[in-house]
Amino acid sequence: MCGIVGVVGKSHVNQAIYDALTVLQHRGQDAAGIVTSYGNKLCLRKDNGLVRDVFRTRHMQRLLGNIGIGHVRYPTAGSSSSAEAQPFYVNSPYGITLAHNGNLTNTEQLAEDIYREDLRHINTTSDSEVLLNIFAHELQEQRQLKPSPEVIFKAVRRVHERIRGGYAVVAMITGYGIVAFRDPHGIRPAVFGHRDTANGPEYMVASESVALDAQDFKLDRDIAPGECVIFTEDGQLFTEQCAEQTELTPCIFEHVYFARPDSIIDGIAVYKARLRMGEKLADKIMREHPDHDIDVVIPIPDTSRSSALELANHLGVKYREGFMKNRYIGRTFIMPGQQLRKKSVKQKLNALDLEFRGKNVLLVDDSIVRGTTCEQIIEMAREAGAKNVYFASAAPAVRFPNVYGIDMPAKEEFIAHDRSTEEIAKAIGADWLVYQDIEDLVDACLEGATTDAKAFDCSVFNGEYVTKDINDEYFRRLYELRNDANKTLQVIDNEAIDLHNQKEA
Amino acid sequence: MCGIVGVVGKSHVNQAIYDALTVLQHRGQDAAGIVTSYGNKLCLRKDNGLVRDVFRTRHMQRLLGNIGIGHVRYPTAGSSSSAEAQPFYVNSPYGITLAHNGNLTNTEQLAEDIYREDLRHINTTSDSEVLLNIFAHELQEQRQLKPSPEVIFKAVRRVHERIRGGYAVVAMITGYGIVAFRDPHGIRPAVFGHRDTANGPEYMVASESVALDAQDFKLDRDIAPGECVIFTEDGQLFTEQCAEQTELTPCIFEHVYFARPDSIIDGIAVYKARLRMGEKLADKIMREHPDHDIDVVIPIPDTSRSSALELANHLGVKYREGFMKNRYIGRTFIMPGQQLRKKSVKQKLNALDLEFRGKNVLLVDDSIVRGTTCEQIIEMAREAGAKNVYFASAAPAVRFPNVYGIDMPAKEEFIAHDRSTEEIAKAIGADWLVYQDIEDLVDACLEGATTDAKAFDCSVFNGEYVTKDINDEYFRRLYELRNDANKTLQVIDNEAIDLHNQKEA
Amino acid sequence: MCGIVGVVGKSHVNQAIYDALTVLQHRGQDAAGIVTSYGNKLCLRKDNGLVRDVFRTRHMQRLLGNIGIGHVRYPTAGSSSSAEAQPFYVNSPYGITLAHNGNLTNTEQLAEDIYREDLRHINTTSDSEVLLNIFAHELQEQRQLKPSPEVIFKAVRRVHERIRGGYAVVAMITGYGIVAFRDPHGIRPAVFGHRDTANGPEYMVASESVALDAQDFKLDRDIAPGECVIFTEDGQLFTEQCAEQTELTPCIFEHVYFARPDSIIDGIAVYKARLRMGEKLADKIMREHPDHDIDVVIPIPDTSRSSALELANHLGVKYREGFMKNRYIGRTFIMPGQQLRKKSVKQKLNALDLEFRGKNVLLVDDSIVRGTTCEQIIEMAREAGAKNVYFASAAPAVRFPNVYGIDMPAKEEFIAHDRSTEEIAKAIGADWLVYQDIEDLVDACLEGATTDAKAFDCSVFNGEYVTKDINDEYFRRLYELRNDANKTLQVIDNEAIDLHNQKEA
Amino acid sequence: MCGIVGVVGKSHVNQAIYDALTVLQHRGQDAAGIVTSYGNKLCLRKDNGLVRDVFRTRHMQRLLGNIGIGHVRYPTAGSSSSAEAQPFYVNSPYGITLAHNGNLTNTEQLAEDIYREDLRHINTTSDSEVLLNIFAHELQEQRQLKPSPEVIFKAVRRVHERIRGGYAVVAMITGYGIVAFRDPHGIRPAVFGHRDTANGPEYMVASESVALDAQDFKLDRDIAPGECVIFTEDGQLFTEQCAEQTELTPCIFEHVYFARPDSIIDGIAVYKARLRMGEKLADKIMREHPDHDIDVVIPIPDTSRSSALELANHLGVKYREGFMKNRYIGRTFIMPGQQLRKKSVKQKLNALDLEFRGKNVLLVDDSIVRGTTCEQIIEMAREAGAKNVYFASAAPAVRFPNVYGIDMPAKEEFIAHDRSTEEIAKAIGADWLVYQDIEDLVDACLEGATTDAKAFDCSVFNGEYVTKDINDEYFRRLYELRNDANKTLQVIDNEAIDLHNQKEA
Repeated sequence: MCGIVGVVGKSHVNQAIYDALTVLQHRGQDAAGIVTSYGNKLCLRKDNGLVRDVFRTRHMQRLLGNIGIGHVRYPTAGSSSSAEAQPFYVNSPYGITLAHNGNLTNTEQLAEDIYREDLRHINTTSDSEVLLNIFAHELQEQRQLKPSPEVIFKAVRRVHERIRGGYAVVAMITGYGIVAFRDPHGIRPAVFGHRDTANGPEYMVASESVALDAQDFKLDRDIAPGECVIFTEDGQLFTEQCAEQTELTPCIFEHVYFARPDSIIDGIAVYKARLRMGEKLADKIMREHPDHDIDVVIPIPDTSRSSALELANHLGVKYREGFMKNRYIGRTFIMPGQQLRKKSVKQKLNALDLEFRGKNVLLVDDSIVRGTTCEQIIEMAREAGAKNVYFASAAPAVRFPNVYGIDMPAKEEFIAHDRSTEEIAKAIGADWLVYQDIEDLVDACLEGATTDAKAFDCSVFNGEYVTKDINDEYFRRLYELRNDANKTLQVIDNEAIDLHNQKEA
Repeated sequence: MCGIVGVVGKSHVNQAIYDALTVLQHRGQDAAGIVTSYGNKLCLRKDNGLVRDVFRTRHMQRLLGNIGIGHVRYPTAGSSSSAEAQPFYVNSPYGITLAHNGNLTNTEQLAEDIYREDLRHINTTSDSEVLLNIFAHELQEQRQLKPSPEVIFKAVRRVHERIRGGYAVVAMITGYGIVAFRDPHGIRPAVFGHRDTANGPEYMVASESVALDAQDFKLDRDIAPGECVIFTEDGQLFTEQCAEQTELTPCIFEHVYFARPDSIIDGIAVYKARLRMGEKLADKIMREHPDHDIDVVIPIPDTSRSSALELANHLGVKYREGFMKNRYIGRTFIMPGQQLRKKSVKQKLNALDLEFRGKNVLLVDDSIVRGTTCEQIIEMAREAGAKNVYFASAAPAVRFPNVYGIDMPAKEEFIAHDRSTEEIAKAIGADWLVYQDIEDLVDACLEGATTDAKAFDCSVFNGEYVTKDINDEYFRRLYELRNDANKTLQVIDNEAIDLHNQKEA
Repeated sequence: MCGIVGVVGKSHVNQAIYDALTVLQHRGQDAAGIVTSYGNKLCLRKDNGLVRDVFRTRHMQRLLGNIGIGHVRYPTAGSSSSAEAQPFYVNSPYGITLAHNGNLTNTEQLAEDIYREDLRHINTTSDSEVLLNIFAHELQEQRQLKPSPEVIFKAVRRVHERIRGGYAVVAMITGYGIVAFRDPHGIRPAVFGHRDTANGPEYMVASESVALDAQDFKLDRDIAPGECVIFTEDGQLFTEQCAEQTELTPCIFEHVYFARPDSIIDGIAVYKARLRMGEKLADKIMREHPDHDIDVVIPIPDTSRSSALELANHLGVKYREGFMKNRYIGRTFIMPGQQLRKKSVKQKLNALDLEFRGKNVLLVDDSIVRGTTCEQIIEMAREAGAKNVYFASAAPAVRFPNVYGIDMPAKEEFIAHDRSTEEIAKAIGADWLVYQDIEDLVDACLEGATTDAKAFDCSVFNGEYVTKDINDEYFRRLYELRNDANKTLQVIDNEAIDLHNQKEA
Repeated sequence: MCGIVGVVGKSHVNQAIYDALTVLQHRGQDAAGIVTSYGNKLCLRKDNGLVRDVFRTRHMQRLLGNIGIGHVRYPTAGSSSSAEAQPFYVNSPYGITLAHNGNLTNTEQLAEDIYREDLRHINTTSDSEVLLNIFAHELQEQRQLKPSPEVIFKAVRRVHERIRGGYAVVAMITGYGIVAFRDPHGIRPAVFGHRDTANGPEYMVASESVALDAQDFKLDRDIAPGECVIFTEDGQLFTEQCAEQTELTPCIFEHVYFARPDSIIDGIAVYKARLRMGEKLADKIMREHPDHDIDVVIPIPDTSRSSALELANHLGVKYREGFMKNRYIGRTFIMPGQQLRKKSVKQKLNALDLEFRGKNVLLVDDSIVRGTTCEQIIEMAREAGAKNVYFASAAPAVRFPNVYGIDMPAKEEFIAHDRSTEEIAKAIGADWLVYQDIEDLVDACLEGATTDAKAFDCSVFNGEYVTKDINDEYFRRLYELRNDANKTLQVIDNEAIDLHNQKEA
């Protein structure tokens, strides 16, 4: 997962982009980048690290101009060890920079095509570089000295035709403006809004509405699936539907875990959805364990707090924050002659013994992926004196990989792989375990929706990929590619080789 | 406020100290330091910054040895701009390093005395450097080639006689062991515990019990007021009461705000105390506003969440996390020609409109100091559509400065200075305001106490300083000193000059 | 001036390029860069600073591959404050990186053309970025999936037709090899050679032969004017003359000042040429001052030592190193409230009083540009007790700007502008002054030449620019461009904005 | 070897100390440090690296005050891998900082004594820390609230009585002034001078007179052997002879190799001494090889240029700079899987083939220590085509270690150990070899001396140590200590552990 932002302002936009990136930091803490345009010269700064570490005063002072885009990156399996920070740049046509949230599922083929068609060299394994070059190629083919909305819409239309997957994209065309578009299923989120100034409106496009809130931009709306939005340097706004067939089936995992609770995505208030997940989960627990002896409901911080609170309310049981999160995680250093110590969940969480001693506790988490953390937490609860430890997951069992930008392990590594709920409970050490039903999860999200969202991509739960092009062959190839990449990376000492990310000092 | 830690182990202790400092990071994010002893040579690393930024692999690899101490610093008025990271060091006698949490109230006089007595030069404005030299002087006076428990206890006895204020101290005597002691009123916290290994017990002393929990050290107990504890390099433990008259009156602000909720201080579980603060506050609200029309209780995150939850439970009103905290705060940069923009609370908090719109909300915070943040938050609540905004403080009105190590503004800057509760409500824009009563706060802390704590230093609320040496003259002198310091600092361009903190790169 | 290098090896070439750049460091101490290709992925590192500071272990470990190019940059007026380190990169076609020594005189027009033709965005003011895009465009026009010698030679032919100025270029075509070419007048130097290994020959192309010597590459020959040389990844060598009309008129200033004395350029041993400059100069002094009373000949270190030694020998006068050079020049810091102190030549040179006291000294320098340093040095000589101070310049009076890559002030700033030799002597405070005659300089260079060099670009001395396209209009436009650039730079606080040089930390 | 400087000025002295250190940089390129005193607070900056790298703007801006001292360090065997930069600091009495050039020969005993007497912990293996503590102890013993010249002279007298070896020391006593002294044999150099300002005289003390020249300080004189000089903060100067028996026998190696040629040490102009070494050497060559067939004399740059020039003049043979020095030495990086490559002299020197081809060359170096470099250079000369290669050393054969601060290998590693001149010639590959006679070397230095210098410490040539306390037992113990130190260093991964040098970032 990643976060993207673009701003067309009436004064330098570096601070606005920076602030938006800090608000979107939960979407990616691995790398950050900003590019601005000043007098048609591009100013770029990107590096691995948190926003506050990547941008120092000396960098900000060079990021001049009233227009720019930014990115925060979440490491994904293919690129976790490679330093491929965004935005990416190509100089022809026009000088285009691009940042992207999501994942393409035909990257490999596209990279080959774009070399054959246009001799464009792709220097990284990032699908964003490929996407940028596809977009650039489609613009260049039209050979216009000046880009226009028509030209750009046509190029985006061609992009939608050629690329597959989930993507929300923001690109800056030097000397012209910012272009944003979202895949035809609206899998990844993107919103835009404006802020009025004495010199006219300023525009921001971003992954989540919170980025707009924090700087008093008024949320206009979500970008529609397949839609393209253009903000020109001189303050004009153009929008057009650029995909043939569209359908709003956003990724439900944003609501389960990824998005900030104070965001509104496709008309759904994430916080409210999470409260409702708690309600539905309470109902199921009552159905499955009508005579439960739960003394206290304890969330695994932070995401599940909202669900757990409402779950407790509906069960009529006490809610207690029995785990405290250590907000200043350090590293584990290896001294000469030492082995790497196992990273323990104890570094992240501390159990308040008083809330566990002698009690039957229900632990609530947003979801269960590998299950290893769950297992350690349940053990902590028992060590803290819990009599019985029950576990509830606000989402159904995760059984399928995500192919639209959320990094997940191979499906064999899921705790739910080839296991029944009872078997999972046993594996993680819970006295019993309740998973949210998928229909309840969807309902929890849809109930308060103010837009026309009617369905979601729930592929991680049910294996139904909305783009319909994902099959076993895809995963087999993916597996091989990663293996090859790993081998190469071993040879080069796990160091990234990348022209686009000149990491330093 | 600061955090301290000391470890005597059976293998390299650098990682243990580092991990403890990350757990104590909430006590000070301004600077961090570790010193270890290896073959009687000291290895030091300290600098401004968070623990994770100060210690890199290359530093950790040099911090060798089975014994060491560490420190995290909270900036205080006198030293906020000066780079006086701890531990401090003097080479005679023995080579002593020391770290300290608290504040001495007779620093100035002590610095003069120690120069006159022993020609000891004090190079910073830090009371820790003075404290170290007093301790060193009292040890040196006994002229023993090898230190012994008797010699050290005698020195600590002399230190207690000479210095005034609140302090928890950890010191390492090269080639001998670690010494920890706490002021005769036990104002600042300090605990110790042990962990058994195949080679015998390892010891840790720290500001809060959470530091021990996180690494499976068993909490033995709090250091008693005036007590001194010695852990020798070879694993012996010595303790002795070193103050004439002692009385346990710890700082109540640890429970209100400072300590981590999962800590147990002087037998009091901080989380439980905070829940009870919510109960008591609910009672008072019912007394003062029996017909209240509160729709929802909303905490100002993070500290007040526990109190607010229990307050809501007792009021029988919904509890909602209506403000989301931005955990990745960035900086505000000044571009050439720009003015510094006002730092807005919007950078830190975002209001969930849905929880405010059309509702009567009760906001709960742990305490109110200057009141400026309260005012902005209340304004945010109204902008988010709240009908009425009520405010409750889990602590009484803050009207007096803290002199024992918690940095606070001059009393004229407190919103409660010369104002009644109604006037304060008006000043911060609340429809009504309720403060916790001081007796209720004390009771909330005492109720579950398992030790003999019977009273607290509540000076910030009632102006009664347990050390009895604080008067108007003290504050007048403090004010002048700070002014002088500020003037000097202006001359030298706000840059720290300090031998002990050779800040670099 | 700059230094360039390219290596096609049989194992990783990063160290070889690095070592070559340190040997070429005298050609540019402002910035350095290396790009290598590994598995068709490019690895880049470039930044401002000396080679030894730009490349740390972590950078070198990422610069993998058996093929790569490097660059050291001398700051030039247009880019002195901008961070435009080389090599530059474009991704289409093929992925090309390029480094360049020299200066184009029609950059502005080319940048416009390339945007119009190919929509290629130029993001810096560097002529190297323009040159790269012109080359890339000419390659792309041929639309070959795989480049071949024919295709490349054709592209270089087109480049020669379109660009004007002096240039020595090294470019790497990803997946193919290294291309090097030199302008049709051979103004800037470039040589190549090989080193035999068990796996076949390795090739190096570089600005000067010393780069080859230091690593036991055998110098094959200079690249001919207008010639293009290709070294393929698999070890093949192709050469072709790619310019219509060529003439070897290399820049004579390389021999006067710029090149290392141990280099051989176009068949001329630089050290020998400098010795002969001393001889010729001695002859002229004897002619002009047959009754001179010179007691001692003292060079201004380091360049003029060779000429001065031979001059002294021919005059039959003692040679003494009366000025010692401080090899560890520091900076002048400005303290708050201070003014910038005048940079004195005293920081760089120290006069040995014993060699000056009471003597008639002849100071020898390689050339005189602004004359300010001369003036200070002559003053130092007098302060050291010299009776009379005579001055000899191994080159004629500099009266015209260099347009082929040597950074020089506007001609109004030359001490020789509108002044006779006597007036210059007076201006710099010399008792008399002798300039080398231009014919003597040319003869000194030609005498030992083993190749067909017959003439030089001597434009800085005689205003005759070998490319014939330099006129007053050119200088007027250049002047305006620089002024505009300066204005922009002031607005942006003298900070570089450049996509290609992501300078950090 | 090291360089020291101290300045008492009328305005901030940081730049003056910095500039002096750059001029003294040839005396030590391993580490640098400055400490200043401002309002009786000390400001320190020290780190490994060149002066220009250690001191950045942010450091200089903190080095405030009109008084301060500085140091550049040459790595010595004991501390080469440890980060023990100077100045060192102790806080009692008064706060004293100290920097030192030289070596004590009874460090071990002194460290034990000072712990027993005063419980002073020594945290490094540096003799400077010991020296500082001895000086501090002797001052403290006198228990004066304010230091005075009498008190300081008495302390220095005691220091001379207790410590042995060669040393030139500069120390700053906080709030009082700067103290400088030189060992009773004047082995290591130290001079002082003054500069008049409108506010009275400013003083500088430094290792060499060039440091004074560069900033227009007038050289007053050398510090006499055993003498102590005091410059108080308020501009007073006190001097006193503080040693019982003194004798001026300075280290002759300063003239041979170490000092800058433009320095005047103990009345001897180093450049002139080196010229005379060339004369004497010419005489000896004529005696030993009256029928020599030398075509050209070629110095090994840089030190031997002066001797070689005059040698050539006296022989009546051409002088040519046949070796060019690479002034920008880089590093050799080890790639994963590679072995460390042998460091070749080729990285440092390049032979001008034209000066060697077919000639009989006489190479001249200042001295020969291990002989490995000589051997490589002679091989280079032969590869460059030399017919015969003769070698002359401006100093006699080095056969004994230096114990007064010049780092040298164990005597078994000297090429001259147990070899006759003929055997050495053979070992290094010279056709013949001539060493300077020791009497000639001494005469060369004494001839122009303006002071009472009559003898030198020539121990590296004749094994006669002027302090008379050096015997086989000393070297045996030294050898063991180094071995032990090496073992410890291996355990701790070759990283320095040192409280006084908190190296960072």
